[in-house]
Amino acid sequence: MAVDNRQADASEESLHRIFTVPEAPDSTLGRIEKEISENLNAFLQTHIAAREKPLAEIEKDFLSADIPESPSFVSEHTHFLLDKLVAQSVHTSAPSFIGHMTSALPYFLMPLSKIMIGLNQNLVKIETSKAFTPLERQVLGMLHNLIFNEEEAFYQQWMHSANHSLGAFCSGGTVANITALWVARNNALKPDGEFRGVAQEGLFRAMKHYGYDDLAVLVSERGHYSLKKAADVLGIGRESVVSIKTDDNNRVCLDELNKTLDSLKARNIKPFAIVGVAGTTETGNIDPLEQLADIAEQHGCHFHVDAAWGGATLMSNKYRPLLKGIERADSVTIDAHKQLYVPMGAGMVIFKNPALMTAIEHHAEYILRKGSKDLGSHTLEGSRSGMAMLLFASMNIISRPGYEMLINNSIEKAKYFAQLIESNPDFELISEPELCLLTYRYVPEATQRALKIATPAQKEELLDALNDLTKFIQKKQRESGKSFVSRTRLTPAKWGRKITTVLRVVLANPLTTDKILNDVLCEQQTLAAESEFSFPKIISLTKTILDKQ
Amino acid sequence: MAVDNRQADASEESLHRIFTVPEAPDSTLGRIEKEISENLNAFLQTHIAAREKPLAEIEKDFLSADIPESPSFVSEHTHFLLDKLVAQSVHTSAPSFIGHMTSALPYFLMPLSKIMIGLNQNLVKIETSKAFTPLERQVLGMLHNLIFNEEEAFYQQWMHSANHSLGAFCSGGTVANITALWVARNNALKPDGEFRGVAQEGLFRAMKHYGYDDLAVLVSERGHYSLKKAADVLGIGRESVVSIKTDDNNRVCLDELNKTLDSLKARNIKPFAIVGVAGTTETGNIDPLEQLADIAEQHGCHFHVDAAWGGATLMSNKYRPLLKGIERADSVTIDAHKQLYVPMGAGMVIFKNPALMTAIEHHAEYILRKGSKDLGSHTLEGSRSGMAMLLFASMNIISRPGYEMLINNSIEKAKYFAQLIESNPDFELISEPELCLLTYRYVPEATQRALKIATPAQKEELLDALNDLTKFIQKKQRESGKSFVSRTRLTPAKWGRKITTVLRVVLANPLTTDKILNDVLCEQQTLAAESEFSFPKIISLTKTILDKQ
Repeated sequence: MAVDNRQADASEESLHRIFTVPEAPDSTLGRIEKEISENLNAFLQTHIAAREKPLAEIEKDFLSADIPESPSFVSEHTHFLLDKLVAQSVHTSAPSFIGHMTSALPYFLMPLSKIMIGLNQNLVKIETSKAFTPLERQVLGMLHNLIFNEEEAFYQQWMHSANHSLGAFCSGGTVANITALWVARNNALKPDGEFRGVAQEGLFRAMKHYGYDDLAVLVSERGHYSLKKAADVLGIGRESVVSIKTDDNNRVCLDELNKTLDSLKARNIKPFAIVGVAGTTETGNIDPLEQLADIAEQHGCHFHVDAAWGGATLMSNKYRPLLKGIERADSVTIDAHKQLYVPMGAGMVIFKNPALMTAIEHHAEYILRKGSKDLGSHTLEGSRSGMAMLLFASMNIISRPGYEMLINNSIEKAKYFAQLIESNPDFELISEPELCLLTYRYVPEATQRALKIATPAQKEELLDALNDLTKFIQKKQRESGKSFVSRTRLTPAKWGRKITTVLRVVLANPLTTDKILNDVLCEQQTLAAESEFSFPKIISLTKTILDKQ
Repeated sequence: MAVDNRQADASEESLHRIFTVPEAPDSTLGRIEKEISENLNAFLQTHIAAREKPLAEIEKDFLSADIPESPSFVSEHTHFLLDKLVAQSVHTSAPSFIGHMTSALPYFLMPLSKIMIGLNQNLVKIETSKAFTPLERQVLGMLHNLIFNEEEAFYQQWMHSANHSLGAFCSGGTVANITALWVARNNALKPDGEFRGVAQEGLFRAMKHYGYDDLAVLVSERGHYSLKKAADVLGIGRESVVSIKTDDNNRVCLDELNKTLDSLKARNIKPFAIVGVAGTTETGNIDPLEQLADIAEQHGCHFHVDAAWGGATLMSNKYRPLLKGIERADSVTIDAHKQLYVPMGAGMVIFKNPALMTAIEHHAEYILRKGSKDLGSHTLEGSRSGMAMLLFASMNIISRPGYEMLINNSIEKAKYFAQLIESNPDFELISEPELCLLTYRYVPEATQRALKIATPAQKEELLDALNDLTKFIQKKQRESGKSFVSRTRLTPAKWGRKITTVLRVVLANPLTTDKILNDVLCEQQTLAAESEFSFPKIISLTKTILDKQ
C-alpha cells in the first residue's frame, strides 16, 4: 500500500489505490520501476558469479515468521529487496557462471514478460485465457513439429482439436517426466474387460488384473534424478527404475539393456517404459535413440526421451543428427528454460500420438467440460500462467537459424574448452563434450605420472585425495565468487569405475568468452595450492611414488 | 534479434546483442517497454470481461506449426502480440469479471516482478538461488505461522534447518494437493521391518506387505477435482477417492463420514487420508474442520485441509474462526495466486510437523546433497522460479491488517449480492455465501410460484428447462463480454438433489462495485428473454400450471 509519501496505512482508500493502474507516467510507482530497472541492469552487467556472504549471514535478514502487522511503503520495501535479496542473489546470467544450466537471457524478454504478469491469464481453461490457449496449442505444435516433423495436415487436424492435446506445457522437466510416465503407466495398465484401468482402480488392482509381479522403467545410470522421483510419485517405487550401465561415453549399453529386459520378463516383471537420455544432466551425452526405439518397439514399451537439456539441439541442422531416433519416441521432455533461453518455469512434454494423453484426461463440473478446448484436461498441474507466450516470442524473434547459431556456438565453445583442458598438463578431461557440457578435474602433471606406476593402495589413496581436492577447489571458487563451476560424482572406466569427483561446466551462455574459460582454469590451479590438507598430501604421495621409480 | 531498425538478421553480432543489457535508457527496447506498459495500462483500465471474437477466428492467428526460418524485429513481434494476443485476452482483472478466482492484482507487483524475471533464480538449489532460498523458507514459515501459530522457538529451530522443510512452494493448488497426499501415502505405507517402504518398493508390494485390500481418501462430494487427479497420479486410483455426501450447506456430513470409515475398515480398506475442504471451489463453504480433526485422529488418518481458496481468510481476525480446526491439520494447501493476490503460479503446501516431508526426500549427485539447504530435496517439482518473492513483498507491503480488510470486504460484498438476489423476485439464491462465493439462478417469479404446485412431471420439465436457460444466460453473457460469471452443476436439497445448473460468482476483486453487481443481474434478466427455446418453454409451462390453479 502507500505508494506515496504519506504514512503507510491500511485504509480502505489506500487499499483501493494499490489495485488501480496509476494514471500519471511520472507516478511514484513509475519512479520505483525505473530504480529497479537501473539496479537490475547494474546487477546483470556485473561479471561475477555471486558476492561472498555466508548463508548464515543472509538468513539473518529472513528470520521472522511473523506476517507484518503494519504495512510498508512500496519504495521502502523495494530498497529492502534490492539490498538484501538482489545483492545477495546468484548471477546466474554472468558469463563466468558456467556451473549449471542457467544463462544470460535475451533482454527483450524483460519487457515482454510484463505482458504475462500484467494479463495474469490462467491457462487451465479458455474462460480465463482465451487467445493464450490457441497460442499455447501452437507452441506445442511447433515443438511437436521440431521433434516429429509430421505433415502440415497433421497439425491442421490436431493442434487445435478439442479433446486432444499434442502435449503439456508445465513448470519444468520434472513435471514433464512425471506426466510422460503417468501416461505410459496408464496405457500399460489400461481398461481391459471388466477392469476399469489403473487410473480408476489403482495400481494394486491393476497388477492383480494383469498378473505382473512388478513394473519396471529402464534408463541408463546417467538418467536424471527426477525419474526416480516420478516412480515414487506414481506408486511404482524408486527401485522399479532399473539403472542400465553406460559405456565409456556415458551412453546406455544396449547389450546390458537387452539382457535386463530378458531377465525382467523371465521374472514376470513388466518393463512398461524405456527412457532414452538426450543430454545427460551431468555430462551432456546422448543415448543411441534409434536403437532404443527398436528395442522399445520390439518389447512393446513406451519410449520416452528425456531431452530436457538436449532437445534444443534439434534447432541446429548441423547437430540435429546427434538426436537421430528421437522422432520415433512416444513422448519427449524438453525444457524451454534451458537452451531455448526463456525464464524459469517453461517445461514441456510432447506426445507423438495425439490420442496418447487420453489416458490421463479428466473433467470437472465447473470447467474442463467435454468438448471444450481447455488445456487443463490433459495437464498434471491445474492453474498455470501464460509462460508459453515467452517461448512463442523467442521462437519468432530469434528464429530457428538464430537458435542454431546459439546451439552451434555453445557446442564449439565446449570443444574449445576441452582442448584447453587437454593441452594443460595439470588437468584431466573426464568426459568429452558431445553437447556443451563437459567434466574434468585438476591433477598435477607429476601426479598423473605417479598414478601410472602407483601400487593399488597408493593409487586408491591418491584418488581419494584428488576427490577431496576437487571438492575443495569447487567450493573455494564458488565462495570467492568470481566464477562458478559445479561438481558431481562419476564412475569413469579409466579409473576402474571408482567414484570420482569431477568439475562440471555447462557452456550455454553466449556471453562466455575464451578468456573467461582460461581464467577459470587459472583460478582453479591457484586455488588447488591453497588446500591445507589434500594438496600437500597429493604432492607428498606423488613424490614418494616417483622417488621409488 | 534486431532490436534496432536495420534488417532483422541472425548474425553473430546481433545474437550477441540481444543477450546484452542495453546501456542507453532511450534504447529501442526502452521505447518498446514504454509502449507495452501503455498498452497494458489501457487494457487493465478497460472495464469489460473480454472482446467478442469467436475462438475459431482467434485460432487463425495461431495456425502454423513451423518455427520461423527468419527472425522478427522485437518491435514488429511486440505489435503482433499486442494486436493478436493482448487484445484477445480475458480481462481477468476487470471488476465485472466475477466468474473465477482471478482478480485485479496490486499494481506494485508489476515493477517488482521484474526482479523475479530478471534475476531468473532457480530455487531447486542454493547454488542458483542463494538469498532466494532463505526468503522462500521464511515465506513458508510465515504461512506455517498463519495456520499453525507455533511458538517463535519452533520457527527459529525449523525454518532454516537443513534436512527439514515446513512445506513446499509450487506452481499451484493441484501440485500442493498431490504433494500432501504423496506424503500421506508414503507415511501410511512406510518402511517396516524388511519392507523398504512404498517410496522404494512401490504400491503393489506395499499393499501386499501391509495386507490391505485397498486404500481410500475421504473427502466431501464438493472436493476439488485435483484430488481425483492426485489419486490417479499416485497410483491409488480415482475410485479410491470416496465422496462423502454434504449437508444443505455443502459441508461434509460427519455421520456419513463415520459410517463410511467403519464400512471401509470392515472391508479391509485402509483410509489413509481425510481431506477437509476450506472453501469449496464451487460454493465457498468450509467443512467442520475441528470435528474432522477428531475423526482423523481417532482413525489414524492423515488430515489434509484443501484451503487453496479459503486459506487467505486466516488473515482476517474477524473471519478466521470459520476455519477453526485447521491448526490441527497435518498438511494444508493454500494458493497465494488466489486471495493473497499475487500472479498465477504461487501454490503452497504446508506441513504441521517438520519431519513429515522426510517421506518424500530425495537427493542427487550433482545437487540436493544431504545436509544442504536446497529446497529441491522436498519438492515434487525440480527447477522453480523465485515466485515466493512476490508473496513476500505483498505480505510486507499490504500487511496482515491490509489483507484482513480485503478479505472482509469481499465476504461482505458477497453478502450484499446475496441480499440483492433474494430481494429480486426473479432470482433464486442457491448457496448462501460463507466466504465470497455464491451460486444462484434466474427463475421468473411466476415460475417460482408454479414450481410449488406443479405435478412431479411438470416440475421435472420446468427444472430441465431452467437448467438450459441458466446455461444459455451464462454463455450469452460471456460472449457479450461486458461481464462474466461462471456456471457449475450442484444438487441442492431444495430441488430433491436433482442436478441443477447454477450461476457462480466469486467476489474477490476489490474493484467490483455494488453498481456492477446490479448491472450483472440486470443483464442476466435481459438475456434470459433472448433465449429462443428455454425461455418461451418456461413461460408457457408456467402459464399452464398457474392457469389450472
